[in-house]
Amino acid sequence: MSLSEFELIERYFNSAFSQGLSPGISLGIGDDAAVISPRAGQQGCICTDVLVADVHFPAAADPADIAQRALRVNLSDLAAMGATPVCFTLGLTLPAADEKWLSRFAAGLLAASNRFDCPLVGGDTTRGPLNIAITVYGEVPVDEALRRSGAREGDSVFVTGNLGKGRTALEALGLGKGGDNIDEIGASKGIKRSELTPYQKNFLHQCFYQPEPRLAFAAAARQYISSAIDVSDGLYADLGHLARASGQAMYVDAAALPFAEAVIALTDSVQRQSAALFGGDDYEICFTAAIDSTPALEVIAAESDVVITCIGEVAAGTGVTVLDDGNIVSIEGNHGFDHFGGAEK
Amino acid sequence: MSLSEFELIERYFNSAFSQGLSPGISLGIGDDAAVISPRAGQQGCICTDVLVADVHFPAAADPADIAQRALRVNLSDLAAMGATPVCFTLGLTLPAADEKWLSRFAAGLLAASNRFDCPLVGGDTTRGPLNIAITVYGEVPVDEALRRSGAREGDSVFVTGNLGKGRTALEALGLGKGGDNIDEIGASKGIKRSELTPYQKNFLHQCFYQPEPRLAFAAAARQYISSAIDVSDGLYADLGHLARASGQAMYVDAAALPFAEAVIALTDSVQRQSAALFGGDDYEICFTAAIDSTPALEVIAAESDVVITCIGEVAAGTGVTVLDDGNIVSIEGNHGFDHFGGAEK
Repeated sequence: MSLSEFELIERYFNSAFSQGLSPGISLGIGDDAAVISPRAGQQGCICTDVLVADVHFPAAADPADIAQRALRVNLSDLAAMGATPVCFTLGLTLPAADEKWLSRFAAGLLAASNRFDCPLVGGDTTRGPLNIAITVYGEVPVDEALRRSGAREGDSVFVTGNLGKGRTALEALGLGKGGDNIDEIGASKGIKRSELTPYQKNFLHQCFYQPEPRLAFAAAARQYISSAIDVSDGLYADLGHLARASGQAMYVDAAALPFAEAVIALTDSVQRQSAALFGGDDYEICFTAAIDSTPALEVIAAESDVVITCIGEVAAGTGVTVLDDGNIVSIEGNHGFDHFGGAEK
Repeated sequence: MSLSEFELIERYFNSAFSQGLSPGISLGIGDDAAVISPRAGQQGCICTDVLVADVHFPAAADPADIAQRALRVNLSDLAAMGATPVCFTLGLTLPAADEKWLSRFAAGLLAASNRFDCPLVGGDTTRGPLNIAITVYGEVPVDEALRRSGAREGDSVFVTGNLGKGRTALEALGLGKGGDNIDEIGASKGIKRSELTPYQKNFLHQCFYQPEPRLAFAAAARQYISSAIDVSDGLYADLGHLARASGQAMYVDAAALPFAEAVIALTDSVQRQSAALFGGDDYEICFTAAIDSTPALEVIAAESDVVITCIGEVAAGTGVTVLDDGNIVSIEGNHGFDHFGGAEK
């Protein structure tokens, strides 16, 4: 017997997510809408990200991984605002009411939800091609939200964590549309997927399915940050958004770009530079701050268990310029990840 | 040349929706998240509905109609909470970046957005099978949100507007999965789609694509309403939710169910009763209130340009019982619209 929609939602979401309301949630899952009680002195932040099967993840991936990724990439947007998560809603479209799939998906979602203190408060489950639309709601003190538009001439450009891992994972683990395309990135070093070490496999899997939204660092560092964005489309495209919104030029020193050991081991320098600038899916925070804020930012980063790296500076002008040993890196044909027709541009 | 994702979003959404911020919105579309300023004494209401092509609307429908429906059905959930819209986000999955489609879709969305004073503040556009996930955010005074759980023994059961029109539209206009299935509903009266009057066609088209969220009435009548839900799955299923959440039984007088002229003309009495009870897609508000509130509710309804009808009462017990001339209407095999496997139940 197949489960009815109501039983299905009841079993896998209501029960898993309804043990006690979080502070700030007056009415959770199970009514026409959830009710949120804003705290005094706070503003709300709201954003939506959609993940589509075989575009953003392989349809056959572990549903727990898919769920983790879906919530975490949304939370990364809240981090870029300097906000703290309050709750989220889920718009889940599924080809069939598969209990096994749903129980794994709910388990992953619950794990991420608990990890970031962000309860599910509502949503909609319906039939169709696999599609996961998550809307997260967070809070930020009045007038303190980080925007893309605040970068000032002379500011330093920073990035949290390291870059290029999203793209490297996509290719080394064969997660992209092409599937088995490790040779694209591994060819020059003669690396086959079967030769990835267990550590490398696990590291890249984590990078892709469990990116770490930099919520604690961004919230704690708000007062020092002049502009911020999360690196989802590739550093070049995302810095372009900061440049445009702020009316400034951004200069990046390619030699300063931070990479994880596994990425360095699996790529040559041109490949990893390209993965960082144009690959996307890194979910780090790229931000600008006055030079004299660096010591304070370093302290907050250490307290938040995050490494930050100065990768460039803000100057008068427009656009993004990447310098490698004094030479301008060509961005011909590379514009960051684009879901529609990027290749023809 | 195809449009890049960024140009596409910029052109059809940012520009259309960014003329001046509404009160309550501190930062609209174009950053990592929107920023909302809660008004003093208000709580937030948040809910998500997903519309899938060929499940909730024909894929080939006018994109302006699809957009109208997508936003309005979400707003109907806010109405059921007694909330007032503040803003919404859009998760739009599209097979291709079709400019013509997008411009029509954006036009419909903007029309609905303006009509209900509910600006688009963010979202995500990506490639894949057509899927529209909208999250609406609204406000309601502290502790005044209408819930499903407040019905009391002796309350009257009311419904706004009239019922059965969603299902009649679906069938008479051939909008369902089966396509050209007018005979299913029209057969007994010998009605063919070509014989629908222009008025009937237009009325049913409006019912399906531009349901009227009862926002003004529900917000104005909050203090008199003990429980509420919007009629999206069919009155029987939705009243079942009120019954369960309130721990009460609901009795419905089938003879009292209100129908529009066009529905009466196109159906026999059994068909329209079934359409009201089990058809869904009506997006009216079903609510309960103390009997002595009826005069006050009638005044508010008149002021809100809505008709309300008392269709039954709340009694001790459980479940929903429909009485037709004293006989219990069988609900065998009918459980409201169910996106997953309802037929097997």
